[in-house]
Amino acid sequence: MDKIFRVNMTDLITSIEEVPSNWAGLGGRALTSTIVAAEVDPSCHALGVNNKLVFAPGLLSGTAAANSGRMSCGAKSPLTGTIKESNVGGTSAQQFAKMGIKALIIEGLPKEDKFYSLNVTTSGVTISEETELIGKGNFAVIEALEARFDKKVGVVSIGQAGEAKMAAANISVKDPDSKIRSHGRGGMGAVMGSKKIKYISIDAAGAPGVQIADPEKFKAASRVFAKTILDHPVAGEGLATYGTNVLVNILNEAGGLPTRNFTYGQFEGHDKISGETMHDVIVERGGKTKHGCHAGCIMQCSQVYNDKQGNYLTSGFEYETIWGMGANCCVDNLDQIAEADSIMDDIGIDSIETTVMFGVAMEAGILPFGDGAGILRLLKDEIGKLTPLGRILGGGTGSVGKAYGVTRVPVVKNQGIPAYDPRSVKGIGITYATSTMGADHTAGYSIATNILNIGGFVDPLKKEGQVELSRNLQIATAAVDSTGMCIFIAFPALDNPECLPALIDMINARFGINLTGDDVTELGKSVLKTERAFNIGAGFTNKDDRLPEFFSEPVAPHNAVWDFSGEEIDAFWDF
Amino acid sequence: MDKIFRVNMTDLITSIEEVPSNWAGLGGRALTSTIVAAEVDPSCHALGVNNKLVFAPGLLSGTAAANSGRMSCGAKSPLTGTIKESNVGGTSAQQFAKMGIKALIIEGLPKEDKFYSLNVTTSGVTISEETELIGKGNFAVIEALEARFDKKVGVVSIGQAGEAKMAAANISVKDPDSKIRSHGRGGMGAVMGSKKIKYISIDAAGAPGVQIADPEKFKAASRVFAKTILDHPVAGEGLATYGTNVLVNILNEAGGLPTRNFTYGQFEGHDKISGETMHDVIVERGGKTKHGCHAGCIMQCSQVYNDKQGNYLTSGFEYETIWGMGANCCVDNLDQIAEADSIMDDIGIDSIETTVMFGVAMEAGILPFGDGAGILRLLKDEIGKLTPLGRILGGGTGSVGKAYGVTRVPVVKNQGIPAYDPRSVKGIGITYATSTMGADHTAGYSIATNILNIGGFVDPLKKEGQVELSRNLQIATAAVDSTGMCIFIAFPALDNPECLPALIDMINARFGINLTGDDVTELGKSVLKTERAFNIGAGFTNKDDRLPEFFSEPVAPHNAVWDFSGEEIDAFWDF
Repeated sequence: MDKIFRVNMTDLITSIEEVPSNWAGLGGRALTSTIVAAEVDPSCHALGVNNKLVFAPGLLSGTAAANSGRMSCGAKSPLTGTIKESNVGGTSAQQFAKMGIKALIIEGLPKEDKFYSLNVTTSGVTISEETELIGKGNFAVIEALEARFDKKVGVVSIGQAGEAKMAAANISVKDPDSKIRSHGRGGMGAVMGSKKIKYISIDAAGAPGVQIADPEKFKAASRVFAKTILDHPVAGEGLATYGTNVLVNILNEAGGLPTRNFTYGQFEGHDKISGETMHDVIVERGGKTKHGCHAGCIMQCSQVYNDKQGNYLTSGFEYETIWGMGANCCVDNLDQIAEADSIMDDIGIDSIETTVMFGVAMEAGILPFGDGAGILRLLKDEIGKLTPLGRILGGGTGSVGKAYGVTRVPVVKNQGIPAYDPRSVKGIGITYATSTMGADHTAGYSIATNILNIGGFVDPLKKEGQVELSRNLQIATAAVDSTGMCIFIAFPALDNPECLPALIDMINARFGINLTGDDVTELGKSVLKTERAFNIGAGFTNKDDRLPEFFSEPVAPHNAVWDFSGEEIDAFWDF
Repeated sequence: MDKIFRVNMTDLITSIEEVPSNWAGLGGRALTSTIVAAEVDPSCHALGVNNKLVFAPGLLSGTAAANSGRMSCGAKSPLTGTIKESNVGGTSAQQFAKMGIKALIIEGLPKEDKFYSLNVTTSGVTISEETELIGKGNFAVIEALEARFDKKVGVVSIGQAGEAKMAAANISVKDPDSKIRSHGRGGMGAVMGSKKIKYISIDAAGAPGVQIADPEKFKAASRVFAKTILDHPVAGEGLATYGTNVLVNILNEAGGLPTRNFTYGQFEGHDKISGETMHDVIVERGGKTKHGCHAGCIMQCSQVYNDKQGNYLTSGFEYETIWGMGANCCVDNLDQIAEADSIMDDIGIDSIETTVMFGVAMEAGILPFGDGAGILRLLKDEIGKLTPLGRILGGGTGSVGKAYGVTRVPVVKNQGIPAYDPRSVKGIGITYATSTMGADHTAGYSIATNILNIGGFVDPLKKEGQVELSRNLQIATAAVDSTGMCIFIAFPALDNPECLPALIDMINARFGINLTGDDVTELGKSVLKTERAFNIGAGFTNKDDRLPEFFSEPVAPHNAVWDFSGEEIDAFWDF
């Protein structure tokens, strides 16, 4: 039977609890959001004693289901002030699930000014004081812990940014190759830093593994499910060949590639940073064009990007990061962006928030547009060294905007707007405006239908159908985020009628239950409503479901503007 | 007939307009808040093209009425995001009133990156590019303008902080001795800086003066009114002898003097910074214990504080500033505080926000508690020089809290909480929580009745009666802020039944109307409701009418905690 592992950092005690019956059917985002909503006062200080940090693997994590290795992390966000869920690949979800850990809840704040580590085993969590690794980056932490424990140890850690409680700090999770995946958005690393936890090590030895109620049914459904992924042109082929960075040229063509801090919709240097170029560079330097962020991934949208000397530089090198430092900061040098990606992983800072932030920093005159070397310097010497400027930058997009009095600040609920201009891809604008998480493309990835013709087509430049599109996607995503599945399974799910039933069959076979498609939709709705209720308790209103004023300025090449009324946006919540 | 002067900084044009009939009966705060609510979209960026900066003298400004020389300034605040009114003494209110300027409305943003000045005369406003004074402090601006124009020129200006759009930047107004008074709170200086206006010069030559409809009635009422001020033990005597700083020992005795960033309620060094000590130092060094912030002030709560050599150091040296750097930062050196006061005037930064901020900066470890020299250094070398650290500090209390991940951050609606601990003086806590302006002691100064036994007595340590007290005071204050009267006329008004009728008689005699006491109360209510409606439009809810979490910790010596429920606080708005 799965258990709740609980850690109280105020009293430095840990416990193992039964799973309350109303949490039993939940996993991933559904579970972290339910726990945060149940146990955290929405008005609390996100870095204070009353916030809690919750980790939960998905319903299918730890099974043989393809692409089911995502871990959810939830808390009140110090960046947005909203509830936050941020999910990640890597090894931790499958380890937790196999160890029977339904969720790990970390509460309280240490009374003394010391850092600690948590060691998670099947028999519980132990808390130890940590001194050696304090001030170190995530790569050094992983290396040290593999020496201290063994190569198989799971690692969840924060870098210097998290220690310093920067609002853009993320939480790093070791992947199967001892590299880094991130609970990226919303400053979860600052919450972990506030609780003075440098790392969580996971020793899965003796893990009982996941019990499947109906193994035959599971196996059959699993086979169908995997086939729908592999048969899909994007999920099975496009992502594997070019990674998510396939999108640079596509968005540039669509005029939705935000350029020069959201001033234009196309970037002159798009070819130099595109997925196609990246693919060729990787092949030429002996990297890998395919790579999974967790065991069991059959999409392989990650890659290994080597430097000019053929040495490993980075992996998990995503479109949003490449766009953020590329088009958004006018840096057309893929090597510089890859180096920045690696530094951000090491410091432990969200590469979306940080690159969106650099666009505003350039607008503020802190460095000129196009200055990739300047970005590398600011990452290493300012953010990494926790200087005052580093703290402004590490506070994210809104932080720089406030400190320098900038008005062109692309944020919703203080979270930086990623990679898709909401004026020329209007469905994603509805997602940015209404997501319970602040601007978040993954919350309802309308790009699928607005740009990639997945699940039909809704014209990105017209208002019609966008609210409904975003609503359906956000509901589906909240459910998918609860299964432990990668968000990209949405692609086959939208196009292939066999995909979703197979996914539901796997869940039913795993738990011996009988969920229907409607149940899954209801789960998604209920997750969104739970999250929204938390936000209302924290003081958010429909006035916060708005894009920044400057999106009323037309953006080339379509001269598109953001033209939704408040009332039209608010209709999102009519369900 | 009074006129509206309007300046459009986008097109660099100015106009003179008739006063709309529904604004005719308004002045001061009632007028600025009405104009801002009518013309500014509450969701706009406070530093963007759609915010407006409005100046309006009070209903009685420019007359011979005692203490009627207060100018109101309104806008959406970049610090709080709420509507904001901040009023000030100095010469501008009487100049505007005598020139027949009902209000000056400044809108738009210049298209070019240049600074400008406005020159206001009876025939209108002219806009000129300004280069010479950019980067200069307020004292240099006043000196240069008195040379450029003449000694009588009125000056409204911003220092380096306002130019840099720091959220704690204030707007300085020349006083009768060419020193500085401030529209202090809420970052009005950043709004003026965003509109690229370095200064407004006022040439009142040829001003027609204020017409009194019934001069005899006015004179008679004015005499009664002045007598009620002079007869009052605090307004007529206490303030004149010790200034507002008379409060250090009183609040220390009451256990409500926030010390060491609101950790304790009493300060060991209170005697060294008290009004009594200050009085003796002033006398010893040949300063002035009495001084008016505007012509016609008969309370004279200001002073001239000289340095050890007997040279002028500062004036308008208020309790809140002395408390903020004194008890709150544990600096028991009055000379250092006076020097800081002068530097803050020169840079143009709110001395309340800034000293509350330094308490948090000390908590964050930026400098140690008690380090007065460190504060002077940070003011001059960091804030004054616009370094990254200076921008964090200049962003105010909340800015430092966020940049350094501090949880003990005394703000409401992101504005620093002044000088009176809300746990041990509970009425002021209700004012901090509910004021439309963020934490603001002047919005409903319960200290009068909680501590000074003015207008009766409500036990500061008990919850009973505090909501009603704050409500009555906030309504009355909103009305008083509309008359151009100094807030301290509330003292005689609360204790002497002749005071308020005389004030109303003066307004009636001035305009030839027949207001009653009820009308004035209704005006106050209507101002608060107008302001609140703006804030609701900007996304504020009752969840924002709350004190920070840490006030649930008991504070010595009474071990008092903040123990109002949300429901109890929300009852404030039942009128």
